[in-house]
Amino acid sequence: MTTGTLTKPDQIAAELCAAVDRNFDDQIAFLSRMVQFRSLRGHEAPQQHWLAEQFAKRRYDVDAFSLADVNLMSHPKAAPMDGIDLAGSQQVVATLNSKGSGRSLILQGHIDVVPEGPADLWDQPPFSGAVQDGWMFGRGAQDMKAGVSAMIFALDAIRDAGYAPAGRIHLQTVTEEESTGNGALSTLMRGYRADACLIPEPTGHTLTRAQVGAVWFRLRVRGTPVHVAYSEAGSSAILSAMHLVRAFQDYTKALNARALDNSWFRNVKNPIKFNVGIIKGGDWASSTAAWCELDCRLGLLPGETPRQAMRGIEECLTEAHKADEFLSGNPAELVWSGFQADAAVCEPGSEAEAALSAAHHSVFQAPMQERLSTAVNDTRYYCVDYGIPALCYGPYGVGPHAFNERVELDSLRKTTQSIALFVANWCGVMRA
Amino acid sequence: MTTGTLTKPDQIAAELCAAVDRNFDDQIAFLSRMVQFRSLRGHEAPQQHWLAEQFAKRRYDVDAFSLADVNLMSHPKAAPMDGIDLAGSQQVVATLNSKGSGRSLILQGHIDVVPEGPADLWDQPPFSGAVQDGWMFGRGAQDMKAGVSAMIFALDAIRDAGYAPAGRIHLQTVTEEESTGNGALSTLMRGYRADACLIPEPTGHTLTRAQVGAVWFRLRVRGTPVHVAYSEAGSSAILSAMHLVRAFQDYTKALNARALDNSWFRNVKNPIKFNVGIIKGGDWASSTAAWCELDCRLGLLPGETPRQAMRGIEECLTEAHKADEFLSGNPAELVWSGFQADAAVCEPGSEAEAALSAAHHSVFQAPMQERLSTAVNDTRYYCVDYGIPALCYGPYGVGPHAFNERVELDSLRKTTQSIALFVANWCGVMRA
Repeated sequence: MTTGTLTKPDQIAAELCAAVDRNFDDQIAFLSRMVQFRSLRGHEAPQQHWLAEQFAKRRYDVDAFSLADVNLMSHPKAAPMDGIDLAGSQQVVATLNSKGSGRSLILQGHIDVVPEGPADLWDQPPFSGAVQDGWMFGRGAQDMKAGVSAMIFALDAIRDAGYAPAGRIHLQTVTEEESTGNGALSTLMRGYRADACLIPEPTGHTLTRAQVGAVWFRLRVRGTPVHVAYSEAGSSAILSAMHLVRAFQDYTKALNARALDNSWFRNVKNPIKFNVGIIKGGDWASSTAAWCELDCRLGLLPGETPRQAMRGIEECLTEAHKADEFLSGNPAELVWSGFQADAAVCEPGSEAEAALSAAHHSVFQAPMQERLSTAVNDTRYYCVDYGIPALCYGPYGVGPHAFNERVELDSLRKTTQSIALFVANWCGVMRA
Repeated sequence: MTTGTLTKPDQIAAELCAAVDRNFDDQIAFLSRMVQFRSLRGHEAPQQHWLAEQFAKRRYDVDAFSLADVNLMSHPKAAPMDGIDLAGSQQVVATLNSKGSGRSLILQGHIDVVPEGPADLWDQPPFSGAVQDGWMFGRGAQDMKAGVSAMIFALDAIRDAGYAPAGRIHLQTVTEEESTGNGALSTLMRGYRADACLIPEPTGHTLTRAQVGAVWFRLRVRGTPVHVAYSEAGSSAILSAMHLVRAFQDYTKALNARALDNSWFRNVKNPIKFNVGIIKGGDWASSTAAWCELDCRLGLLPGETPRQAMRGIEECLTEAHKADEFLSGNPAELVWSGFQADAAVCEPGSEAEAALSAAHHSVFQAPMQERLSTAVNDTRYYCVDYGIPALCYGPYGVGPHAFNERVELDSLRKTTQSIALFVANWCGVMRA
């Protein structure tokens, strides 16, 4: 922790924590407003425009651009967008330049959220941002708008305590984290780099030591529609789709058996998850279904590339076709529909991790724990593709992608303090 | 065959057949125009308006009314309409009154068609009504617009041969045959009755001796959505739906084992068909699905009522719930979504059947064969509920509910002749 004055590090930490506390009511209101944006995929722009305004008010240099403004699909790690308009997918990078000589930092969070599902199964309206018993509820409250508020209000606390970061900071809000990762990738293609990156996904104040990758794929199954009266003469695409689901369930079991040898995930039970998240098929109750589409996700572990996982998916599908009389002559079409995400490891021993660990200890008075994640996050581009140490660490919440998703507000407060101290540790701070 | 003159029956038959032949190019054009109406459920009105005009041109008394014009849902055999607007579901009854004292007749056909499915899997556009190699192609060409054209042009032939039916005829075009049967039921509720009814469904010139009933139901399955990373903590409505499908497949096997004792269907292999025709579920590839809906159809045999079949469906579902940890605490919702159709038997020995059999023999020079149908048709209301002998007999075609549905035109011509002769046999004809 460097400073232009003789202020002691412990005193700075105390001042930053106090500033976070003073601003916390504002932070709660800010987060609640964020949750009220229904920023589903393809509908993130209003939220991003609002955030760009918030950054401009803070006198940060704001670069708002879309995925159409970078040559996205030229990048080998760009994932297929499946009908989403590139120009509508807005990214915001707010830059705080510094007169200091400290290390630079990217603070990044995604503001896209997954669909809320049937609203009547929520206890609160899913985009209320309501606070109850110390929790804020709503789709995205946990994953990961709370983290976005933490990185913004960590910088506010530094300013309000009378300091400025001694290194350049890019504060980045991105889209597509839940589907491709192309939002994060686009900021790198736009040219933003730093000496480290922190992404405050809701990790419950743990550091994500290793994370799986994932591949999305769609299976387009055909059938031979006939009147149900003669169903033996036809073939139901829905029943064929069920056959394929069973084949991928069996394949996933085999993958998880092999995972017992994985150096990072061997102690995690069934770390590779297969999911059929969306199914649509057929037009009429009394006709065998002419078509059925399945939207699927399969994980992969460190040590395997997305390309290898995709070859495995192709082979599983080929074998499943062979085992079915109709499908062997009428194979399902395989479409790569999103994620082709690398697994990633946060290599132990980085200075960035040490700076975060110290900050965490100051706030929580306990060592920072680590976790292994069976979900992807955007740090992978930094550590796998661009050689930038990247830390995934954020607040505690419950129910990502679930009904009654919520974040614990006291955890959010402490995480914001922890991030403020991390910035001070990593970049250094100067008297403003 | 009665007539006001001394014309011999064989000569009348020859005259009627010749008149059908003379008009047949017009009939093909008429049928092609009918096929070009995309009269899917809820979208039948333009076709019905056009038919009402055609009947008015022929100077028939036209009664056009909708399902909202009868007290439909008061009838114990009315089936749930599942969101379809009653007022939009138009029926047309064209009446030819007669000065003669012959028997009266209802000629009825449905003009609703099932969805065509993916159009690119048809060799012709699905609503082209194109003719090729003696067949007319298109959704509804076979099921059952060809039959509708046959009943209309059979009466045209009688007129053009210089005769008039000696009994009152109601020429009825109805909706909802493919989903509830409420269109046919509404004509009876409107007050139309006759001494017999003929419905020219595409039976390949066979008489439908017995037919199954059917029940439609929807299963609304819930899940517990979670991020796929923690899929064990959630529950996928799609996988639960697959469990229910397997349960109904097993149940159907048991029903078909019992069907070996059925007096009508014991020689038909697996006469009871279960079908999942539509499936929809989930919102996101990386979330366990929060919901899944299945639209299903299950047949029933003569000797069982729809109510009994519905109780069986409820029991199957209850047992399937018990066998699944999640569903036992979160049972699927069961919605009756359409058909609650009686099975029916065309009791042998009726005078109407004898009249049709004689007409068939005159045209085809062979005895009329009979068939057992694993599909429902609208004759059930007449024979089961209103004590009116009802015959299901019509042209030959291929592919009901399938791609490249088509009707054989020479079969249609002969069937039209057969129906014209049946009208002459049943009602009698008089010199016009």
